[in-house]
Amino acid sequence: VTSTRAIENVVVFGGGAWGTALALVAARAGRQTTLWLRDPDVAAAIRDHGRNERALPAIRLDRSFAVSTDLAVAAKADLVVVTVPAQSAGGLLRALAPFLSTATPVLVAAKGLEHGTRALMTEVVAREIPGAIPAILSGPSFADDVARLLPTAVTIAAHAMTQAERIAAALGSASFRPYASDDPTGVQIGGALKNVVAIAAGIVAGKGLGASARAALTARGFAELNRLGRALGANPSTLMGLSGLGDLVLSATSAKSRNYALGVGIGQGQPIEALTGAGAKLAEGAYTASVAIELAAAHGVDMPISTAVAAVLAGQLNVDAAVENLMSRPLRREGP
Amino acid sequence: VTSTRAIENVVVFGGGAWGTALALVAARAGRQTTLWLRDPDVAAAIRDHGRNERALPAIRLDRSFAVSTDLAVAAKADLVVVTVPAQSAGGLLRALAPFLSTATPVLVAAKGLEHGTRALMTEVVAREIPGAIPAILSGPSFADDVARLLPTAVTIAAHAMTQAERIAAALGSASFRPYASDDPTGVQIGGALKNVVAIAAGIVAGKGLGASARAALTARGFAELNRLGRALGANPSTLMGLSGLGDLVLSATSAKSRNYALGVGIGQGQPIEALTGAGAKLAEGAYTASVAIELAAAHGVDMPISTAVAAVLAGQLNVDAAVENLMSRPLRREGP
Repeated sequence: VTSTRAIENVVVFGGGAWGTALALVAARAGRQTTLWLRDPDVAAAIRDHGRNERALPAIRLDRSFAVSTDLAVAAKADLVVVTVPAQSAGGLLRALAPFLSTATPVLVAAKGLEHGTRALMTEVVAREIPGAIPAILSGPSFADDVARLLPTAVTIAAHAMTQAERIAAALGSASFRPYASDDPTGVQIGGALKNVVAIAAGIVAGKGLGASARAALTARGFAELNRLGRALGANPSTLMGLSGLGDLVLSATSAKSRNYALGVGIGQGQPIEALTGAGAKLAEGAYTASVAIELAAAHGVDMPISTAVAAVLAGQLNVDAAVENLMSRPLRREGP
Repeated sequence: VTSTRAIENVVVFGGGAWGTALALVAARAGRQTTLWLRDPDVAAAIRDHGRNERALPAIRLDRSFAVSTDLAVAAKADLVVVTVPAQSAGGLLRALAPFLSTATPVLVAAKGLEHGTRALMTEVVAREIPGAIPAILSGPSFADDVARLLPTAVTIAAHAMTQAERIAAALGSASFRPYASDDPTGVQIGGALKNVVAIAAGIVAGKGLGASARAALTARGFAELNRLGRALGANPSTLMGLSGLGDLVLSATSAKSRNYALGVGIGQGQPIEALTGAGAKLAEGAYTASVAIELAAAHGVDMPISTAVAAVLAGQLNVDAAVENLMSRPLRREGP
């Protein structure tokens, strides 16, 4: 019964730019919305001043949603939205599990594959909260574009189309357009792998090789994203949609993408440790790259770009050799 | 016999940036190269000063190729390369026909569909020079990236793979990598339609709708490029390759693309006549849009983005209505 009634209460977990933007989205769509975050100071500042100064300083939040630091707010959720980084999602979901009623939709809005287990985010939900309805939100959507009410289109996928449509209807508004899909695998492979390709595109740009070279690399990156997705059972049309190609186009061309920016830094010769260590902005693709090549090996898929990115990040391949690898392949036929 | 021997003499037609860059490419690949152009003053300046001041002022040409204003230079060509705009290709080819020996490969490096006939460039070659071997060069390649020796990868397609490989081998070098394909239809639909999508992406950017919206539109544009390509018999993997997706990524994100720049101007509210009239830079997509929707209608393919672009360019739809059309479609399932 709970799985088909209309969604009224939405609780968004994670007080970064993305969580704050999605809390705004839910509120604008007319939902009773609560943003959960860990830091009591940030929570107090949002409550008292209507701004998340750290994550989205330019955006007035107008008290359109409640704020809490208590995980127990999950208990009232008709829809849980998880916006913490992919590698932290498992821990948060485990902590949430006791508070959730059966058949609550849990929508993950993080893009990545879990280290160690190689699990998709929907698989992490199913593992940590067996009674939940796992769903994923992905697509080309910078948090500040979303928060500024600029038109944004994303994909929301669940195993059952009716669930995806129910969640999409709960979050959709004039500026934020979620499209429903029943292909969570395709949506997640696109969202995770585009970050790895964006790092590679950034490396090429950081080396000063020009927009033509970056575009060629992006097309090859999309081809390898496709190969892995198909091997894992993704629908090819999902990979060509918003959450695959659309998000890749955004991430592989914009300095606002953390993954692309990481690649630019690497291409310019900055030390990897400084770019990925403590204090650096989290670039999810840095984690996903090595998981992707494990998956590729397990499924017999050739992924030269992800392999090169993972090797550079692991300090096993220098940047010049990687670029040589990526750009100067022998003259031969073009293939899928 | 002539169709399989190695290519030694290359004659490139068209003295713009692209023709000049491709003459450099052929010379660097070790071919005896001649650049034909119409304007005797530009020809003299290239000969005397080693620069094409109008088209590629920053590039030293180093007398690496000969220059001529005489169409009869075609007679010595083992390979003809045509770089004039798509709508002018038919006229030039007709003028060249008397000079060419049978079975000369004629490689068109223009992206567009011929107005009136809806013909692909390879079809224009076959019509104007029935004995020639039609071929097409396309892919993400700004002329100045190519001329500056930055790494560039493109596709060269002919109906016979052996011919495509022969031409690719004649033009390939360390920085310029042509991949051979036997799918000229797929290569040309990608190259022509990406210009139309780039105009649409530019309109969205010019209206200030943000990079997320532009990326979503680009993904939808790629989907409609795919639909038309498949209806015309293109190989889907060609459309996902350098000459389709790769070139789309370049054109739909860069102000250096004339088509994107045209869209930005339209989105900013500049008058269409000023952007496309005499004196304006040629944006091939402005011609291709209307041909594409004729083809789409003939093949029963839905192309809302190209339709909107064509209507805006024809003055039949204002920009705000077009953007509303493009961005705010009803919430529904995502499909191919």
